[in-house]
Amino acid sequence: MKNASSLFTAMGAAATALLLSSTAYAATHDPAAIQASALKDTLAYEITEGLTTEVGPRQAGTEAEARARDWSVKKLKALGFQNVRNEPFMMPTWVRGDETAEVTTPFPQKLHITALGNSPGTGEAGIEAEVVYFDSLAAMKAVPDGSLAGKIAFVTHNMHRAQDGSGYGTYGPVRWTGPAIASQKGALAYVIKSIGTDYHRNPHTGNTNFPEGVKPIPTGALSLPDADNLERMIKVAQKSGKPVKMKLVLTPKNIGQQESGNVIAEVTGRDPSKGMILIACHLDSWDLATGAFDDAAGCGIVTAAAKQIMDQGKPLRTIRILWAGAEEVGLWGGKAYAKAHTGSNHAIAMESDFGADKVWRVQFHLPEQAKAVKEQIAQALLPLGIGANGPKASGGADVSDIIDSNNLAIIDLQQDGTRYFDLHHTPDDTLDKIDPKQVQQNVAAWSTVLSIIANSDVDFTMPPKE
Amino acid sequence: MKNASSLFTAMGAAATALLLSSTAYAATHDPAAIQASALKDTLAYEITEGLTTEVGPRQAGTEAEARARDWSVKKLKALGFQNVRNEPFMMPTWVRGDETAEVTTPFPQKLHITALGNSPGTGEAGIEAEVVYFDSLAAMKAVPDGSLAGKIAFVTHNMHRAQDGSGYGTYGPVRWTGPAIASQKGALAYVIKSIGTDYHRNPHTGNTNFPEGVKPIPTGALSLPDADNLERMIKVAQKSGKPVKMKLVLTPKNIGQQESGNVIAEVTGRDPSKGMILIACHLDSWDLATGAFDDAAGCGIVTAAAKQIMDQGKPLRTIRILWAGAEEVGLWGGKAYAKAHTGSNHAIAMESDFGADKVWRVQFHLPEQAKAVKEQIAQALLPLGIGANGPKASGGADVSDIIDSNNLAIIDLQQDGTRYFDLHHTPDDTLDKIDPKQVQQNVAAWSTVLSIIANSDVDFTMPPKE
Repeated sequence: MKNASSLFTAMGAAATALLLSSTAYAATHDPAAIQASALKDTLAYEITEGLTTEVGPRQAGTEAEARARDWSVKKLKALGFQNVRNEPFMMPTWVRGDETAEVTTPFPQKLHITALGNSPGTGEAGIEAEVVYFDSLAAMKAVPDGSLAGKIAFVTHNMHRAQDGSGYGTYGPVRWTGPAIASQKGALAYVIKSIGTDYHRNPHTGNTNFPEGVKPIPTGALSLPDADNLERMIKVAQKSGKPVKMKLVLTPKNIGQQESGNVIAEVTGRDPSKGMILIACHLDSWDLATGAFDDAAGCGIVTAAAKQIMDQGKPLRTIRILWAGAEEVGLWGGKAYAKAHTGSNHAIAMESDFGADKVWRVQFHLPEQAKAVKEQIAQALLPLGIGANGPKASGGADVSDIIDSNNLAIIDLQQDGTRYFDLHHTPDDTLDKIDPKQVQQNVAAWSTVLSIIANSDVDFTMPPKE
Repeated sequence: MKNASSLFTAMGAAATALLLSSTAYAATHDPAAIQASALKDTLAYEITEGLTTEVGPRQAGTEAEARARDWSVKKLKALGFQNVRNEPFMMPTWVRGDETAEVTTPFPQKLHITALGNSPGTGEAGIEAEVVYFDSLAAMKAVPDGSLAGKIAFVTHNMHRAQDGSGYGTYGPVRWTGPAIASQKGALAYVIKSIGTDYHRNPHTGNTNFPEGVKPIPTGALSLPDADNLERMIKVAQKSGKPVKMKLVLTPKNIGQQESGNVIAEVTGRDPSKGMILIACHLDSWDLATGAFDDAAGCGIVTAAAKQIMDQGKPLRTIRILWAGAEEVGLWGGKAYAKAHTGSNHAIAMESDFGADKVWRVQFHLPEQAKAVKEQIAQALLPLGIGANGPKASGGADVSDIIDSNNLAIIDLQQDGTRYFDLHHTPDDTLDKIDPKQVQQNVAAWSTVLSIIANSDVDFTMPPKE
């Protein structure tokens, strides 16, 4: 992914200044100067490196996430931010146990599997049953209720890479709702081809849910190579009418309500009466990896951008940084934040939670009166290779509740998601996947936007929702 | 790797025929016609798919390798080869147990590790000790004997991708001789950055050895992301003078002498008095993956090439196919073959055991009187994008003993190894890594060479070794 950086490194600060100089700013918050400075940023990578190295995996509700909060408060204070604190909340916690899968007949071999979040266990002895294969979620939906009694249902999919990550919406239901459907069809257990796009023996975890009244059944994700191998085994076995049997051992546990927390820091503005700019990421990660892409890098990016502003003096508006807890396991941090801060004066919400590859598009959800700000941002981002044609901004997971409750304006800086679902929720989400040059482009994009909106006195209040 | 195929698919059979038609052959064994036919081969992929799907991992000396031999004998008979049989032999067998590693202080997190072949165990309780870091094998060699008492030695390296795979020779000693050196320095255990080039959380296994008189110590390979993370942890901890401690649990076992075997099949020639052409691969794989690259594909390639010849009638010389057993764990199959067949009349030995990517170079070790054959082969391979400038052929692992004992001529068809050490000995060595187009180029190269040498009456006897 290195060559992406050539788009912006070729561009000198002089050229940027030319593009942006038509707008009058306090020299210290000049967007062009801040953009140029941010392209040399090292803080975002430093934060990503620190969290992944000195904390590692930080699953919500565990002692590892608590260590991550301690590390974060210390780091944000050391960086000179104001009002740094942890805002604790409680949330239900599920933890992984042993997890193994093997085909026992007719082609005995081990498969790489991981339990989905909220899966019940199989017991230590495991279960062994015939596998029933479906080439899509729709195919499993089509069979009669009860027809999968005593069987392990197996659903595959055809997710491919997409820059905007849209395959996740298309195939995500295999993970999100598939387990409950398999249960309704009577299945003993449910396994899926991981919702991902890489061919490594690293399965993708992620949450699932069983609605009220649906019996939870053990459910796991096979790595893509394993899922394809199982599919081939089933096709060969079918020719001779042999069943394929699988033994599954999953021993996860619910450990009840545990403490998580949101880490908050601020760059206080000159005018507290103006609404805040809220910039978010999430601090927790899945347990299988050190969560570099998801989402240490997001925390690094938003924080480094805020630091670029802070280093040039107070902006007009307060910038609030939210490193949310417990995103992966149910957006508990975003819910807790909205509950605690609905009454506070927010203007715009933004989030970075889609990896660390370059921003390629800016999207807006701004009121009519902010039209000039929108155009200014679009112009200011052009030197970074960022276009502005796209759908309306919808915001990130951790700010969705406060957006809803406060009817907030939104700006999205969309990252290139082409390889995001190679890494998402797998053991492979580690620091080595981070391209420092692309992270710098992210920080430059964020710094540019913040330099404009945090200094704007435009009223960002959205019209009432219909 | 798909675009590599464009080199040869653009070339029609007509063009090949033009290049090769100057040599007179029985029409049925015309190299150009066989090359064109082999470019459409599906058998090599079919064998690779069958072994990886219907058998899976097939570690030497285990029941899985026995199942692989059964599958192979049945398959080779069904394909119509002659004298298909299994030649059993006994070999010492080591099997993997549990394997976990975690940093316990100051940055607690789990690391992905796998035991190296022949490692003793730590006991189920494991060992916990301070990690001592070395940036190279030379650095560890330089410390005094006994200085690592009570410590876990950790050696990293800088292996990068190389088309000819030469990094393995440079950095392989970290795995091959490092454990014995660590033991001599007094270390309690030894961990390495896997000898590989990929950044996935899949460690690379492989054999190691402790010479007579050196106490075997537990020894494992971390995945590259884990090794780099450990290195960073150590560097951070050093700043505050804190030791990094690791807990290591490895419970492999030696299970004594077990049966392995060489599977052999032949295309019998018209003249039994002419020396055979021996073409080899190995049937066993490491236990962590289904061994698609290493070396099901090699068996597929040599067998599909022999089938191309067989399908056009008997060649002058017998072609003997050797699917060797127990290569990974000490070349036991090659040793057993040499012991059993040193007296047999072999002419030339060849092997395919470097993945499934395209052949880019042919190398020779032929007697002076075979000069014209060599030139003919070099010409005939040009349409496949294969050059002939390179070092002398040295043969593959499974034929090295028979080459030595019989002083055989050798031809090497060198495969592109750029991504070989991404997959070698890891869980990631699975069917999805195989590019069918590149496999077809391999089969075409092998078929071309076989069509020439198996029909040549040149005396391939090498001059006596000095």
